[in-house]
Amino acid sequence: MTSAAAAPPNRAYRRLSVEERRTQLLGAALTLFAHRAPDEVSLDEVAAVAGVSRPLVYRYFPGGRQQLYESALRSAADELKLCFAEPAEGPPTERVTRVLGRYLRFVDEHDTGFSALLRGGSVAETSRTTAIVDEVRRAAAEQILLHLGRGDGCAPGPRLRMLVRTWIAAVEAASLIWLDEEKQPVADELRDWLVDQLIALLAATAATDGETASVVAALLPLETASGPAGKLAARLIPVVGGAAHLLPPD
Amino acid sequence: MTSAAAAPPNRAYRRLSVEERRTQLLGAALTLFAHRAPDEVSLDEVAAVAGVSRPLVYRYFPGGRQQLYESALRSAADELKLCFAEPAEGPPTERVTRVLGRYLRFVDEHDTGFSALLRGGSVAETSRTTAIVDEVRRAAAEQILLHLGRGDGCAPGPRLRMLVRTWIAAVEAASLIWLDEEKQPVADELRDWLVDQLIALLAATAATDGETASVVAALLPLETASGPAGKLAARLIPVVGGAAHLLPPD
Repeated sequence: MTSAAAAPPNRAYRRLSVEERRTQLLGAALTLFAHRAPDEVSLDEVAAVAGVSRPLVYRYFPGGRQQLYESALRSAADELKLCFAEPAEGPPTERVTRVLGRYLRFVDEHDTGFSALLRGGSVAETSRTTAIVDEVRRAAAEQILLHLGRGDGCAPGPRLRMLVRTWIAAVEAASLIWLDEEKQPVADELRDWLVDQLIALLAATAATDGETASVVAALLPLETASGPAGKLAARLIPVVGGAAHLLPPD
Repeated sequence: MTSAAAAPPNRAYRRLSVEERRTQLLGAALTLFAHRAPDEVSLDEVAAVAGVSRPLVYRYFPGGRQQLYESALRSAADELKLCFAEPAEGPPTERVTRVLGRYLRFVDEHDTGFSALLRGGSVAETSRTTAIVDEVRRAAAEQILLHLGRGDGCAPGPRLRMLVRTWIAAVEAASLIWLDEEKQPVADELRDWLVDQLIALLAATAATDGETASVVAALLPLETASGPAGKLAARLIPVVGGAAHLLPPD
């Protein structure tokens, strides 16, 4: 190595503030951790992508790869939580569709890292990484409950909370399968199917849980024939046609 | 310690065959791992529960606690897979109800171990334990597909497979929440709600996926008004009453 070859990173050292440098290193780490399993990313690569020396990476992240991984995860979790924010206006199923669309874009952009994190069994997995994942799940559940009319000051009952959390688990599972199956079907189709699942779960739960029945009754007038709930209702007519023998006589 | 105190285990050494001893140690390990996180179980305790010495446990499991944990997990996984077996006779939703009832009994009987395993972040988690969990999930999916009429020689399409796998993820998530919430509601109520979820998911998916529509059309004649599908259909009538504005005019 000549000193000329080392010049660009050295110049960069002087220009960036501590905070800017940290952000730059985290950005490099996120790029690498997004598309590879944590065990497959080395500190040398993070340094190379950021255009800095390995010792500099250690100066900012003395805990090495594990600290970089957890910091990158923290930063990705914060980004993902921002995706969940959606104004509480318009048909609720359309709001959930937009939130889910952003979530699936995030999954798409962090494919391998997302799989490695949620699959478990990675050496980088600790009680801290598990806590970050749980925090994101809680934030997702709160947002969905908000759009179901059970936000701040209106605590949801156990069945409705369980419904939302099991649906979120189904969304995660579907996302992992989607990544395994080379991102088939297209993201919008997966998104719409997952919204259909939520509508179906709400209807089925409303059949036995009083609170969910009130929630569904309050949401239905906000829905339209051209939105997700309307399209699903129309498409269910032929399916339900074969179930006449299950219904009590009028 | 007097030699008299050590006598019962010593006598036991002689009586049991290698296979019997292994089974006995595994049984002791399973009992402990079922109700505690793997990190909280010591080899000394396994020895104490089995009434043998610590060196004897090491003779059978030279890999120590980790090997015992993985062997106990293997044995629990085999037991759980047996729970899935159900004759392909009678209304499919009643078959699934029986399978799910046995699954929830297993969850109940292995509560803390089940949580620790599926939550992740445990030091005992390795690629081997993850592989065992995935194997059980695959076995569960195969059984459910069998009862949906998509068994051997009748390979299911991607949407139906994804449906079953996301439902299994929802069942796992609901089981973990159930354990967290002191096993409320009672197991039978949770079981029936999860079966309702499967019926709702099948109906919603049949609305957009041709194969699922055929599956549902073939299953419906097997269902009865007094079974899970009939009860859900009857209870859905008032819920659907509020959705008239979503449907196209006749």
